[in-house]
Amino acid sequence: MSVYLHDIPLAQAHSRLQEALQSAGLWRVLGMESIPLDENALGLVTAEPVWAKSSSPHYHSSAMDGFAVRAITTNGAISSKPLTLQIGPEAEYVDTGDPLPDWANAVIPIENVESLDENGQLTKDIRAPQAVRIRASVAPWSHVRPLGEDIVATQLVLPAGHVLRPVDLGAIAAAGHQGIRVAKKPRVAILPTGTELVPMGSQLKAGDILEYNSLVLAAQVKSMGGEPTRFPITKDDLDLICERVQEAAREHDLVLLNAGSSAGAEDFSAKVVEKLGQLMVHGVAVRPGHPVILGLLNRQSPIKNRKSKIVNNESEGARNDMVPIIGVPGYPVSAALTIDIFVEPLMAKWLGRRPRELPIESATLTRKLVSPAGDDDYVRVVLGRVGDKLLAAPLSRGAGVITSLVQADGLALIPSGTQGMEVGQKIQVHLYRSRVEIEKTILAIGSHDLTLDLMSQFLAAHDRRLASANVGSQGGLIALRRGEAHLAGSHLLDVETGEYNISYIRQYMPNIPVKVIALVGREQGLILNRGNPKGIKSLQDLTRLNIQFVNRQRGAGTRVLLDYHLKKNEIHSNYIAGYFQEEYTHLGVAAAVASGRADCGLGIAAAAQALELDFIPLFNERYDLVIPKTHAESDLLAPLFGLLVDLDFRQAVSQLTGYDVSVMGTSILED
Amino acid sequence: MSVYLHDIPLAQAHSRLQEALQSAGLWRVLGMESIPLDENALGLVTAEPVWAKSSSPHYHSSAMDGFAVRAITTNGAISSKPLTLQIGPEAEYVDTGDPLPDWANAVIPIENVESLDENGQLTKDIRAPQAVRIRASVAPWSHVRPLGEDIVATQLVLPAGHVLRPVDLGAIAAAGHQGIRVAKKPRVAILPTGTELVPMGSQLKAGDILEYNSLVLAAQVKSMGGEPTRFPITKDDLDLICERVQEAAREHDLVLLNAGSSAGAEDFSAKVVEKLGQLMVHGVAVRPGHPVILGLLNRQSPIKNRKSKIVNNESEGARNDMVPIIGVPGYPVSAALTIDIFVEPLMAKWLGRRPRELPIESATLTRKLVSPAGDDDYVRVVLGRVGDKLLAAPLSRGAGVITSLVQADGLALIPSGTQGMEVGQKIQVHLYRSRVEIEKTILAIGSHDLTLDLMSQFLAAHDRRLASANVGSQGGLIALRRGEAHLAGSHLLDVETGEYNISYIRQYMPNIPVKVIALVGREQGLILNRGNPKGIKSLQDLTRLNIQFVNRQRGAGTRVLLDYHLKKNEIHSNYIAGYFQEEYTHLGVAAAVASGRADCGLGIAAAAQALELDFIPLFNERYDLVIPKTHAESDLLAPLFGLLVDLDFRQAVSQLTGYDVSVMGTSILED
Repeated sequence: MSVYLHDIPLAQAHSRLQEALQSAGLWRVLGMESIPLDENALGLVTAEPVWAKSSSPHYHSSAMDGFAVRAITTNGAISSKPLTLQIGPEAEYVDTGDPLPDWANAVIPIENVESLDENGQLTKDIRAPQAVRIRASVAPWSHVRPLGEDIVATQLVLPAGHVLRPVDLGAIAAAGHQGIRVAKKPRVAILPTGTELVPMGSQLKAGDILEYNSLVLAAQVKSMGGEPTRFPITKDDLDLICERVQEAAREHDLVLLNAGSSAGAEDFSAKVVEKLGQLMVHGVAVRPGHPVILGLLNRQSPIKNRKSKIVNNESEGARNDMVPIIGVPGYPVSAALTIDIFVEPLMAKWLGRRPRELPIESATLTRKLVSPAGDDDYVRVVLGRVGDKLLAAPLSRGAGVITSLVQADGLALIPSGTQGMEVGQKIQVHLYRSRVEIEKTILAIGSHDLTLDLMSQFLAAHDRRLASANVGSQGGLIALRRGEAHLAGSHLLDVETGEYNISYIRQYMPNIPVKVIALVGREQGLILNRGNPKGIKSLQDLTRLNIQFVNRQRGAGTRVLLDYHLKKNEIHSNYIAGYFQEEYTHLGVAAAVASGRADCGLGIAAAAQALELDFIPLFNERYDLVIPKTHAESDLLAPLFGLLVDLDFRQAVSQLTGYDVSVMGTSILED
Repeated sequence: MSVYLHDIPLAQAHSRLQEALQSAGLWRVLGMESIPLDENALGLVTAEPVWAKSSSPHYHSSAMDGFAVRAITTNGAISSKPLTLQIGPEAEYVDTGDPLPDWANAVIPIENVESLDENGQLTKDIRAPQAVRIRASVAPWSHVRPLGEDIVATQLVLPAGHVLRPVDLGAIAAAGHQGIRVAKKPRVAILPTGTELVPMGSQLKAGDILEYNSLVLAAQVKSMGGEPTRFPITKDDLDLICERVQEAAREHDLVLLNAGSSAGAEDFSAKVVEKLGQLMVHGVAVRPGHPVILGLLNRQSPIKNRKSKIVNNESEGARNDMVPIIGVPGYPVSAALTIDIFVEPLMAKWLGRRPRELPIESATLTRKLVSPAGDDDYVRVVLGRVGDKLLAAPLSRGAGVITSLVQADGLALIPSGTQGMEVGQKIQVHLYRSRVEIEKTILAIGSHDLTLDLMSQFLAAHDRRLASANVGSQGGLIALRRGEAHLAGSHLLDVETGEYNISYIRQYMPNIPVKVIALVGREQGLILNRGNPKGIKSLQDLTRLNIQFVNRQRGAGTRVLLDYHLKKNEIHSNYIAGYFQEEYTHLGVAAAVASGRADCGLGIAAAAQALELDFIPLFNERYDLVIPKTHAESDLLAPLFGLLVDLDFRQAVSQLTGYDVSVMGTSILED
């Protein structure tokens, strides 16, 4: 029977899974084991409470190097009327950690006594005198660590479900244990499926999809405390997949079947689950990631009779004839989020630990977000503090863009029932990074330049993170005016004056004092296919009928530059095919040319070089950093100014083709 | 020559270490290695920036199952005036991920077309029709993932010094890598020294010190990204220690010499460092932990000529004839903090990652703290939110109390130059736990009862943490009045009425509406040595000359109970030796008896049983929970009320000797 994808709300999906696992006796700590108490226990989860077997210290211990005494015999000693105590009956030397003699109940530190020889004279043999003179009395139990000061036998040292840290191991040892009972790591099988998948290291051809989801999933499972097994790629064949799933189910506590979870022609996951067990959920109203499958497999499937009998090795002896299976969507972002949403709570339950909870902060949205009303919609955002506002800048929402997860500082949820959010609205963000790191983020916006990648790399070594959003030069200035970034990269030519940036800054950011600093001089020119097959030589050629152009977006400095020269050369944009086809970065333009989507575009030499394309230099231009004065003077940006005079950085930039670093650091404007 | 301990400020100690390492060429990433890109890379640190080798996707990819088309051919299609596109020249079926045909520049999702057969009729063979009918036009590049959408070849994927997370591994793979260059794990030797040390699992006698610091240190080093080696215990013998240190220095990047770092008779660490290299620091003005030693060893020491030549296997080929050594103090808390303070920044440098920074919160101090003005003084605190205040309750400050680190939610610094802090003052706390966890902490204060340990264990399974401070019943009520806890355990007998708690609540917490609930009934009696060697039978015996008593502190319910019965029996406390010797918990009293420090004390049966002592029951009493109404109604405490009717919890408590659970959950008072 055919299976149809039907999205249900997230909460309902969770409760269906939980109920099914409860009936199967699998909603509990899966198993426990005894391990030796050593540093490998780090990060494991206590399966039982740890009660103290012995006390620590297990005797009354001297807390100082000094002399053990009976406190009462010191009564009356004052500076002007010292008392002398005889070694033997009245005082005894003890090192730190030594047991107190039975008769003693206090210690006088060695620096508080005068050690005397047999003649009552001061002796240099301060640790082995005949007597000691004291000039102050001591209270009972002074400088003594009494038995049980740290741990009293039978007390609770750690509860069950505790994730072990270094100091915990010490406390467990101090409480008299040499081993510890921990939760067994759940074994998780990861099965990549898809005829189009090729393993890492393959020579790629169009249509091949590099299989790396299993790597991410395995690493996620590992970081959650599980033990992942990555299976080889299985092609889209129902029987083959069924066989592999059964194989995986025999030795694992959970099967993750990657891709094929949607409802396409070659999406077999739901059929596999129906065939081998019970399909509970197909489709969850969450984005990205909605084609999720939740099911339960029969471990000993009736389809094939295997000779080996399954041995019940769970310590609880509970039913273990069922194995949950999760059909994980194929897009990398969807896959990773599915693991966070469905596997993490399961691992927490199976290990007996608290589920991970990311801290939440409220942040101000820098861009309008549209969202389907019926879905819980997760948006990756970059966070940064500009002035007194914590800003959330949404990243690419494409489910295929794994770099958006790499760059994300957090995940914002637009809950179902909401159709989206407006600029300036407050949004709740689950933090991936600590607040401390976020406070060290420099938000750059505006025009993209490869130098910013290098800058990001160099800043990382100076305890700063550079997060850059590419919205074009004008977009950057507008964002600065709105207080949405710390700096903007800009290369806007004033077509009247031939000057860069200043008139635009006055127009777009009136009344905001700024500092403008030259970063680089760079060549702009035509990015062309290798060998320039269409023989393009100048801007004039863009109007030829067989030439497909790719442009930068409105507001980009490169677009202004193009328009300036088109006008100068009296070329009308209407005659350029592709003039309205827009890309947001130089590399985007280069990629469009490399892929054959366009024959040429205007951009920088470095972008052409990056994709091994041809380049015809046409113009030189200056690329500046525009920085509102308040930020320019902040600690946050200090390392960035340091870079502008850093020879290593300058050299790294000069190695990019088409860059001129002689202007780097020159002050263009300072209000 | 003798070495004298002389404390220097922390910042100076750090800079001396850094300068010495800089001159030795060791203030840098120690080494790098290439490893395969798999889940074992998790947590390692990138040694070089990762630049993309290939783009992802590496071709224009269909983002949906549907039909590839030229956008221009769809122009004009509207609902009432559909267009039909012929399969072959005008449309082609593509699955998600398939490459776009060269001629196409958009995809129409399959659900948006009508599939037609050769007769122009709707066909069920929706993926292999003869033509498709569309009722809307599409924009160019709709439902297409263009080449480089995720990653463009040559772009920066990750900077150097990045700690690898699961999604990072995916991005590196997507960028065309199969391996990655990571920083080598620094190898750290941990050498426990001390004649008094015995390994875990030994039968302990007085004076033996269980060696577990090396375990904690190894786990700390591991969690910081290093590779620890634990050496066996070396006794206090200068030559033996020198030999072992030289051995360790040959194969490791750092030597941690544990204990012997002070200036006592058997403290050899400073001498060892002077003999084998250069002593830079002996003593740092930080508490706990001031007897710290920082030094540099010559790897090929001139003292002995070894036959094996040291092979330089650092990839940088830099000077590596020096090895830093840190003399770590012996007390477990001092040792652990020394690692955090000195080893973590070193590991960060050697791995090229950011040093760990704990988030900081401001909290209100619940107890006065005295601190030596010259020292940076670290105080372990428990944190909890009571009402709108985040409270910091200081834990035991003993350097030997490792449980204080286990229980700590954070570390508060009283900086040098400050002599202490007052109750109610704001203190900056470095958080060990996430804010989310802290918000789930129930602060209990007042009288101690073993039931609270069980409660803590059971609450952990309900996503709550119980942090309890023992200040006696009256102290608890006063703390509640001050808003310093969520609930107090109390068993205060009104000697006039024979009633428990209520009159005290009215006196100590006037005008605060409360809920009082009975937790347990319990026996109080005399805790005695095994076999009752002094034949103690009743309170009357406490006045015998050969009987040493141990009391609870003023304000403790047990003390009130004692005084009530002493008065009733006309026994004057002046005649009881040890009446003013105070302990703060039942277990403290039992420990005092077990150790021989006292012959008997008044307490609960469970405490006697815990230490295998004798017990003579004298009285029955009720132990209540006092909860201000605002907290009683909070979500935070809901699981606690759940426990009071939980059969498992009830059974666990009833298994403690001398407990009566029949009263559990009974409402005593509800304002």
